Amino acid sequence: MVKVAIIGASGYTGSDAIDILLKHNNAELTYLTALPEECGAVEDIFPKFKGRCGLEIEPLDFTKLAESAEVAFCCLPHKVSMGFVPKLLDAGLKVIDFSADYRIKDTAVYEKYYQQHTDKANLEKAVYGLPEFYREEIVGADLVANPGCFPTGLILGIGPLLKNNLIKINSIIDNAVTGSSGAGKNPSKNFHFPNMNENLFAYSIGCHRHMPEMEQIAANIAGDEVNILFQPHVGAFDRGILSTIYCEPKKSMTADNLAELYNEFYKDEHFVQVLDCAPHLKNVAETNYCHIYPAVSKGKVVVFSAIDNLVKGASGQAIQNMNILFGLDETDGLK
Amino acid sequence: MVKVAIIGASGYTGSDAIDILLKHNNAELTYLTALPEECGAVEDIFPKFKGRCGLEIEPLDFTKLAESAEVAFCCLPHKVSMGFVPKLLDAGLKVIDFSADYRIKDTAVYEKYYQQHTDKANLEKAVYGLPEFYREEIVGADLVANPGCFPTGLILGIGPLLKNNLIKINSIIDNAVTGSSGAGKNPSKNFHFPNMNENLFAYSIGCHRHMPEMEQIAANIAGDEVNILFQPHVGAFDRGILSTIYCEPKKSMTADNLAELYNEFYKDEHFVQVLDCAPHLKNVAETNYCHIYPAVSKGKVVVFSAIDNLVKGASGQAIQNMNILFGLDETDGLK
Amino acid sequence: MVKVAIIGASGYTGSDAIDILLKHNNAELTYLTALPEECGAVEDIFPKFKGRCGLEIEPLDFTKLAESAEVAFCCLPHKVSMGFVPKLLDAGLKVIDFSADYRIKDTAVYEKYYQQHTDKANLEKAVYGLPEFYREEIVGADLVANPGCFPTGLILGIGPLLKNNLIKINSIIDNAVTGSSGAGKNPSKNFHFPNMNENLFAYSIGCHRHMPEMEQIAANIAGDEVNILFQPHVGAFDRGILSTIYCEPKKSMTADNLAELYNEFYKDEHFVQVLDCAPHLKNVAETNYCHIYPAVSKGKVVVFSAIDNLVKGASGQAIQNMNILFGLDETDGLK
Amino acid sequence: MVKVAIIGASGYTGSDAIDILLKHNNAELTYLTALPEECGAVEDIFPKFKGRCGLEIEPLDFTKLAESAEVAFCCLPHKVSMGFVPKLLDAGLKVIDFSADYRIKDTAVYEKYYQQHTDKANLEKAVYGLPEFYREEIVGADLVANPGCFPTGLILGIGPLLKNNLIKINSIIDNAVTGSSGAGKNPSKNFHFPNMNENLFAYSIGCHRHMPEMEQIAANIAGDEVNILFQPHVGAFDRGILSTIYCEPKKSMTADNLAELYNEFYKDEHFVQVLDCAPHLKNVAETNYCHIYPAVSKGKVVVFSAIDNLVKGASGQAIQNMNILFGLDETDGLK
Repeated sequence: MVKVAIIGASGYTGSDAIDILLKHNNAELTYLTALPEECGAVEDIFPKFKGRCGLEIEPLDFTKLAESAEVAFCCLPHKVSMGFVPKLLDAGLKVIDFSADYRIKDTAVYEKYYQQHTDKANLEKAVYGLPEFYREEIVGADLVANPGCFPTGLILGIGPLLKNNLIKINSIIDNAVTGSSGAGKNPSKNFHFPNMNENLFAYSIGCHRHMPEMEQIAANIAGDEVNILFQPHVGAFDRGILSTIYCEPKKSMTADNLAELYNEFYKDEHFVQVLDCAPHLKNVAETNYCHIYPAVSKGKVVVFSAIDNLVKGASGQAIQNMNILFGLDETDGLK
Repeated sequence: MVKVAIIGASGYTGSDAIDILLKHNNAELTYLTALPEECGAVEDIFPKFKGRCGLEIEPLDFTKLAESAEVAFCCLPHKVSMGFVPKLLDAGLKVIDFSADYRIKDTAVYEKYYQQHTDKANLEKAVYGLPEFYREEIVGADLVANPGCFPTGLILGIGPLLKNNLIKINSIIDNAVTGSSGAGKNPSKNFHFPNMNENLFAYSIGCHRHMPEMEQIAANIAGDEVNILFQPHVGAFDRGILSTIYCEPKKSMTADNLAELYNEFYKDEHFVQVLDCAPHLKNVAETNYCHIYPAVSKGKVVVFSAIDNLVKGASGQAIQNMNILFGLDETDGLK
Repeated sequence: MVKVAIIGASGYTGSDAIDILLKHNNAELTYLTALPEECGAVEDIFPKFKGRCGLEIEPLDFTKLAESAEVAFCCLPHKVSMGFVPKLLDAGLKVIDFSADYRIKDTAVYEKYYQQHTDKANLEKAVYGLPEFYREEIVGADLVANPGCFPTGLILGIGPLLKNNLIKINSIIDNAVTGSSGAGKNPSKNFHFPNMNENLFAYSIGCHRHMPEMEQIAANIAGDEVNILFQPHVGAFDRGILSTIYCEPKKSMTADNLAELYNEFYKDEHFVQVLDCAPHLKNVAETNYCHIYPAVSKGKVVVFSAIDNLVKGASGQAIQNMNILFGLDETDGLK
Repeated sequence: MVKVAIIGASGYTGSDAIDILLKHNNAELTYLTALPEECGAVEDIFPKFKGRCGLEIEPLDFTKLAESAEVAFCCLPHKVSMGFVPKLLDAGLKVIDFSADYRIKDTAVYEKYYQQHTDKANLEKAVYGLPEFYREEIVGADLVANPGCFPTGLILGIGPLLKNNLIKINSIIDNAVTGSSGAGKNPSKNFHFPNMNENLFAYSIGCHRHMPEMEQIAANIAGDEVNILFQPHVGAFDRGILSTIYCEPKKSMTADNLAELYNEFYKDEHFVQVLDCAPHLKNVAETNYCHIYPAVSKGKVVVFSAIDNLVKGASGQAIQNMNILFGLDETDGLK
């Protein structure tokens, strides 16, 4: 049994990680931490675990952590995370980090969108945890940067086109709609139920922080600079991201070309399912699967990609990465 | 044109009152106030009024108020309201008060559920603004206590039974479900969209503050003491209260008896519609109507009553009261 | 009082037209028709009108129609509509047609997406009822083709750019999300509540029938052929269309350029409100307003346009057109 | 590995049973059947299983069934079920039946609410599959009548009171609200998304078919006749039943009495969790848990009971029963 700690367990990603790990046959939760004011019995913090989990969420104690776990899921906010990760690594744990701190290799870019980077040494060693594209690098890693939810939806959606150099790299538009859980657990005006219910709106116009992450990974896969216009929206539902991705093919493509390309590309990937019709967001909710449908409209390629933002877009992918790190069946706990 | 001021215009009831008054043919908004930090152009505070309302919400200035309005809708919280109402009356305005401060005649009861009452003089003169039962008293009033949303649903639902002394007065159970707008506009954990969506739960178990208001009015109508078990719940929708009211008839009643009684009782009431099937909450949303269906089940009477909590349960009823106060058609602005 | 008939009153657009006309000061409903199996008292067909509307929906009788109304709202499906419109015109009525039958001037295009056109004579005379662009033509018209909901959102969104010849006419992508009322009132698998709730998906991939209407009107405004990639989606909410429109400017534009252009262009239009932030769909629900925010992202222009699909996208716009046809205040019944 | 067949696998309960069994460590799906027109690959019938389940849903073949399975989940409608169950038993399978056909022991009562009973022999042998009350009988049974969803919520909610003879048996009112999945998968007018969304309404007023089932089981537990007023409602959410149960205690009870009684009564029951505050329906969604809070209000006992109607109210409970039948850990697949 792989022994797992969660650092920052009191939020939505923590809750989903706990949920999956409770069902995992070859891993067990051993230690959970959060800020002191968010500590307590798991079943008090998340009443849905009443009777299902006897653990406490405690203030972090590195000694205790080192003794109880082999791997830490670091579910901390950006900036805070890079203050903890070096210590977790020093304590001999493998780390899967949920923040953006180890995703963006170019610190100049990182520092433009976030803040000064204080752990460049580990940043260099970090591996981007999107198994469908970086599985081999993940195998031996100590530090995995778990991808952002929007980048996961986008890259799985157009990865096959990028990899095969089939699209004009200045033509990509990612129009994405996320469920409200993407906002995190802190109440705010926009997410107050009477305001959010029956609503839909765009945000981060022109400047979402997932954009540089997307461009870096897309460029890495394409072997060339890639320019992405990413526009997120939020809708009145709990879970999921539907990415509708528009791009121009270098040469004319048909629906059949796309179906063949995608089915071949993902034929060995358990968690990516290529459909022949539009994915319904509801069909991926509470799962680690990505449903993709590549289509052609007015000469452009339009790819529809659906994931659960908290599972394949966060905690499920983290467990997929953990399974790889520890030589387990990649689907363990996630089927 | 009746000139209307709204004191405390920045919340949900203020917004609905503005909406209705913008469509009113014989009344006009002249003055809007709120706490300094919630002031600004109406179209900035409520973007849905963009281009529809050129007014500002300003900090309250009594001189300006007295000059610009004949009637004030006082949409302030309990306790705060009774600090303002005397001054509004002194300034020569008629007042329709949305708080509980002038609803409960027995100050001992009021003080048990709320706090010390500081305006007993006006409390005595206040009229309970449920037109279907107190229309004649409202006509000449200076101060109308606009009913609570739950009491409105309950009293309209069982008023005909109370008035005719047909039910055992210790047998009444009001099981009500309100939409989330009942919680007001301030974000909180329970009403954070990812927590409230797809949810349903009871609250104020054993002790909701609408209970004494219900019992006082029910007793007044029945001419006898009445005991009510009121249990509110909140559901994942914006608007409406569905009250399912259980009670025991003194002597056996049939569905036909009830239909006849209710149809006769409400035959001249425009805003109360007696149905012959279960009311759908959606059919009263954004209207001032109450849909009622009285039924029999296992020998008990079960009455279903549906209103919009913000309209018939608050702002619409206030405008109905205003129409009565100023001799207008009672349905003006509300059809 | 303008006397109004609704042909095909039993659907969602009929319901919204009734709702608005009940509040209209200078128009009145006089005659309502539907298929025999959908006839009955308005308050039985739509329980929300209980006590609010004493009319019957009856099988169509042309003589009765001609006697009772001056204008007919023709809310019939495509193809059916062009069988009735000539007779309505012959009966001396002005007609506002909700179907696509009189929107597309090029019958070859119409026949590709729909079916053979059987009323080419009237098609030629029909005026496209988007007042913000065709007000002068509407004034004297006998037959108004009320625009589609998606084309309304799109054209209002990029009209100022088209009119001023500022965008590359092959670069337009309209990513739109509509509420479920767009599907009409007939139950179907996708719109069964347990399937649609918490869901979001694309449909009509590559071929929505609103595309040629969009392209025709866009071309007419731009004075040049226009190519539009239109991709609709449906979300789990009742009302509204949020169009996120991407296009490439001919020469670089700033947010300030756009704000100036749009504010100037729409300064006299009551129902189009230019915002300086992302529109929230909820703010236009149940209104005839369009909220627009033009922005710049990664060098492209991104315009957000929000309407209520049943109001500005159908019945409200029809009443706006009716107001113009009969010389009434354009905002009558719609404020 | 227990080999499981599902008869009638194409509905919502079938889907949930498949979902749970895919995660079960000691049981495996071997055979799935449905009506011919609903057959096909599981991943086509339920796209959420794409890539997760390679089985076909086939027309029923008894020989094949007998060869491939040890236990059959019979997810057929009332009446249809009792036509199949005898053959399933004859084929040597244990049967867990989801319909009402084997729940009501008194055929006169059954025939009043349903139709003639055609399998009285097996009816006598059937065991009511509510493990918290009938675990010992279930152990050796061949035929388990899986309880209805509403009865499950009710009986778990007041079972401790009934068992200890603490309530007046004519005083019980069960006011329940179910999610829309309770309506099954066939589209209908009331459950058409634009009608159901933002809605809430009562149904089966006076006569729901779960009433006699409730009364029989309650009487069996109480050892005395019990009279229950059951009033169901349906709300605009997918999953769950919140039962708010009112009853009169024989002698006065306090919140502390109730807490002690319930905690003691359910202390060894994994799937029943006694809370000290109102249960949130969302916390039991997609789980086999029942959250209960017993309270006192105005001298009456009010019990709140929350379950997922498709899990503890159907498929999860069936798997709990299967685990008992085959000597597995009762929580297998359900944690």
